[in-house]
Amino acid sequence: MKQGINVGLLGLGTVGTGVISIIEQHQQELKHQVGCSVNVTKVLVRDLDKKRGVTVDNDILTTNPEDVCANPDIDVVIEVRGGVDETKEQLIQALEHKKHVVTANKDLMALHGAELLHLASKNGCDLFYEASVAGGIPILRSLVDGLASDRITKMMGIVNGTTNYILTKMSQEGSSYLDVLAQAQDLGFAESDPTSDVEGLDAARKMAILATLGFSMDVKLDDVSVKGISSVTDRDLHYCEQLGYTMKLIGLAKRDDDRIEVSVGPTLLPNEHPLASVHNEYNAVYVYGEAVGETMFYGPGAGSLPTATAVVSDLVTIMKNMRLGVNGHAVNAPLHEKVLKENKEIDSKYFLRMRVTDKAGTFSAITSLFAEYEVSFEKLLQLPLEGVEEAEVIVITHHTSKENYQELYDRLQALEVVENVESSYRVEGGQ
Amino acid sequence: MKQGINVGLLGLGTVGTGVISIIEQHQQELKHQVGCSVNVTKVLVRDLDKKRGVTVDNDILTTNPEDVCANPDIDVVIEVRGGVDETKEQLIQALEHKKHVVTANKDLMALHGAELLHLASKNGCDLFYEASVAGGIPILRSLVDGLASDRITKMMGIVNGTTNYILTKMSQEGSSYLDVLAQAQDLGFAESDPTSDVEGLDAARKMAILATLGFSMDVKLDDVSVKGISSVTDRDLHYCEQLGYTMKLIGLAKRDDDRIEVSVGPTLLPNEHPLASVHNEYNAVYVYGEAVGETMFYGPGAGSLPTATAVVSDLVTIMKNMRLGVNGHAVNAPLHEKVLKENKEIDSKYFLRMRVTDKAGTFSAITSLFAEYEVSFEKLLQLPLEGVEEAEVIVITHHTSKENYQELYDRLQALEVVENVESSYRVEGGQ
Repeated sequence: MKQGINVGLLGLGTVGTGVISIIEQHQQELKHQVGCSVNVTKVLVRDLDKKRGVTVDNDILTTNPEDVCANPDIDVVIEVRGGVDETKEQLIQALEHKKHVVTANKDLMALHGAELLHLASKNGCDLFYEASVAGGIPILRSLVDGLASDRITKMMGIVNGTTNYILTKMSQEGSSYLDVLAQAQDLGFAESDPTSDVEGLDAARKMAILATLGFSMDVKLDDVSVKGISSVTDRDLHYCEQLGYTMKLIGLAKRDDDRIEVSVGPTLLPNEHPLASVHNEYNAVYVYGEAVGETMFYGPGAGSLPTATAVVSDLVTIMKNMRLGVNGHAVNAPLHEKVLKENKEIDSKYFLRMRVTDKAGTFSAITSLFAEYEVSFEKLLQLPLEGVEEAEVIVITHHTSKENYQELYDRLQALEVVENVESSYRVEGGQ
Repeated sequence: MKQGINVGLLGLGTVGTGVISIIEQHQQELKHQVGCSVNVTKVLVRDLDKKRGVTVDNDILTTNPEDVCANPDIDVVIEVRGGVDETKEQLIQALEHKKHVVTANKDLMALHGAELLHLASKNGCDLFYEASVAGGIPILRSLVDGLASDRITKMMGIVNGTTNYILTKMSQEGSSYLDVLAQAQDLGFAESDPTSDVEGLDAARKMAILATLGFSMDVKLDDVSVKGISSVTDRDLHYCEQLGYTMKLIGLAKRDDDRIEVSVGPTLLPNEHPLASVHNEYNAVYVYGEAVGETMFYGPGAGSLPTATAVVSDLVTIMKNMRLGVNGHAVNAPLHEKVLKENKEIDSKYFLRMRVTDKAGTFSAITSLFAEYEVSFEKLLQLPLEGVEEAEVIVITHHTSKENYQELYDRLQALEVVENVESSYRVEGGQ
C-alpha cells in the first residue's frame, strides 16, 4: 500500500475549507485510524486569486476539473461545489477513472443517485454521501447498520434548518411568516431566494434519499408529495399551542406491508413527541424500526464544520476499505420494487381551521358532513371572530384516508355556512 | 471462506431469545450484507428443560460453558447471560480459543473491559459491546466514527431507564419518590432490589465505558463520582418546574484541555435542552464535538429486541471483518493518559434548597456568605413555610468550582439562621 492517500477537492467554499482544516488538524487521529496519511493534492476552484479562509498552496489550485477527476495520482474525489449537471459530468469522469467519491450534494443524489451509485459499483469504487442529508447527523450510516437486523417502517425528519428556524421563531415570538423570513435572511439562516427551502423542495430531496436507503426502494423526487410552509400563519401556530401541539415541517416516509408513502409538509406533533422539541436550525431524524422501536438522531443540519465532519467520516470509511481492498461493496442496489400507496391507503389525522358564519345551524351542517364521511373529532374548538358575524372552527380529526379527507375538504369548502377553509395540515406522532 | 458462520450463545434469557429471533427472521438481509448464512449452533443455559419463548432444538442446548467457549466449530461467542466473575472466565476462554466476542454486559465491561480488549487484540479477535450502553442506540459506533475527524469535549447521558422513568413520573404526577418507585416495580420498570439503578451505579458503569471510548483514556468505575436519585423530593421537582428546569439523572463526562471529569447525579437542565424532553424509560446521549457541535442520540435503553438488535449489529460487523480478514483491528488502546480534574477545576452551576429561620437578618447572613465565596445568584426565591416560623430559600448559582462550592455548602449548613440545607444539585446545559 502506498505512503498516503491523495485527495482531490471539487470546490473550496465553506464546506471545502472545513474539509481541509479537519484533515490538517486530525492528521494524527486519521493516521491512527487508517494507518496512513491523507494529502489534499488538487483543488478545483473558480477563481485562482480569491482570498480564502484557509491556507492552501497556490500550486494545488486549478480551474480545470480534469486536473482532479482524471488525475492518475488522485485516489478520492470529494465534491463540495454543489450544482447538478456539470457536477454530475465531473463525478462520472472521476468514477470512470476509478476514483472513489464523497459528495455532500443532495440535489445531485436525489436526482441522479441511482445512476451514479450504479456507475461506482461497476468501477469497483465507493460513493458515499452522508453529508447530503442532515449534515452533522450520521443518519445514513445508522440506517445501513440497522437494516441488517431490523425492518424500518417509518422515518420522520426535520431535515431543513431554514424552515425549522422560521417555524420555531414564529411560534416563540408570535410573529408572522414574512417577518420571521426577513429576519432569517438578515441573519443568514435563509437565502435571498428561499423558495427551495420554504416550499419544501430541499426537504423532499433529502426524504427521497432517506426513503431509498431505509426501504431499499428506488424512491424518486417525483414520488414525494410536497407542501411548504409559506402559507402557515401565526394564527395556525396559536391554535397548535392551545391544543398541545407543535408544528414542524416534517418529511414522512412510511411503509405498511410493502407499500410506501413519502411526503413533506407542515405537520402537527404532540408536544411530548421527541421531534417537537427540536428547535431553531437544528435537524433530527426519527426512525421507527420493528425490533428497535423508536430512535432519534439529532444535530446540526448544515454549517461548514458539521458538514465537513460528515465528509471526512465518509473519507475515513473509503480509506479503510482501500486498506482492505473492498471498495465498491457498500453500494447496495435497492432490494425491493417500489410500490407507492394510493390516496385511499394513506392514513392520517388532520388539523383544519375554517371561517364559518356565526348562526344557528352552522355547527350542525359541518358536523353532519363529517359524520357522512365517517370522520370523527379528536378535538374541536369554536370561537367567535371579533367585529364580524363569523366564527372560527378548529378541528383535529381521528384517522381517515387521504382520499376520504380530500373529498370531505372539498365538500366543506363548498358548504354555504363555511366562508373559507383557512388551513389544513397533517397530524402525526400520536396514537 | 466457509459456508456459514457459527455462533455460540452464553445465556438464553430475554436478550438471548431476541438474538435468536432476529437471526432467524433476518437470514435474507444478513446474507445480503455479509455474503453467508449465520447459524446458532450451541447455547449455554442453566436448565435444559425450561420452557422458552423461542423454538430451539434441544440438541444445541448445553449446561457446560466449554461446549461454547472451547468449541472448535464456533466462530463467534455472544454473551448475554450477565454476571461478572464467572462470565469473565468464560470470555477469557473464548478469546484464548480465538473466538470473536459480542457482549451486552456493562458490569463486566466497566470493570474488566481494558483487560478483555487487550486479550482480544492479542488473539486477533474482535470484541464488541454496543449493547452494553443504551441498548437500542448505536452510540459507541457513532463515537468511534466521529473520533477520526472530531474531538469530543462533552458527553451527557440519560443512560438509565429506571431512574428516568421515576423522575418523569414524579414530575408529571407530583408524586413522591417512594410511591413512584413502588409503581415502577409493579410495572416491571424497576427491580425488586433497585439499588444499582436508583443509586446511580448502573449509570456510572455506562459512563465509564463512554468516557473511555470518547476521550480515549482508561476511565475506571472508581473515577466516576456518583450520586443517585433516592433523596430527590417532589418539592425539589416542584421548584425545578417553577424555575424552568427539568431534573434528570445525568451522566456527565467532560474534558477541558486534557483533564477530565466523569460524574453521575441528579442534574437540572433548562427545559429547552434536548435532553430535558427525554421521557419515561427512554435513554439519550448528548455529545458535543468541537467540529460537529451538538448532537444527540435517542432511543430505548433496554428491552429484549432493542438490545438484541445492537448485539446483532456487532455480529454483522464481526462477520464483515471475518470476510475481510481484518478482525482484531478495531480494538483501540487508549491514546491518552488519564488525568482527572481536581475539585478546584470542576466548574458548575448549582441548585440549593434551604430551610431558614424567617426573621430579619437571615437573608443578609446568607447572601453575605455567598459574597464571601464570590458565588453570584442566577435565580433566587424565598417563600414562607406554612405553620412554622421558617422560610424556604431556593438558589441557582452562577458558575463556581466544586471545591469552592463544597466549602460554601458546609458554611451554609453551619450558619445559625439556616435550619438545614435540604438539597443541592448540579445545573448543566445552559450558558
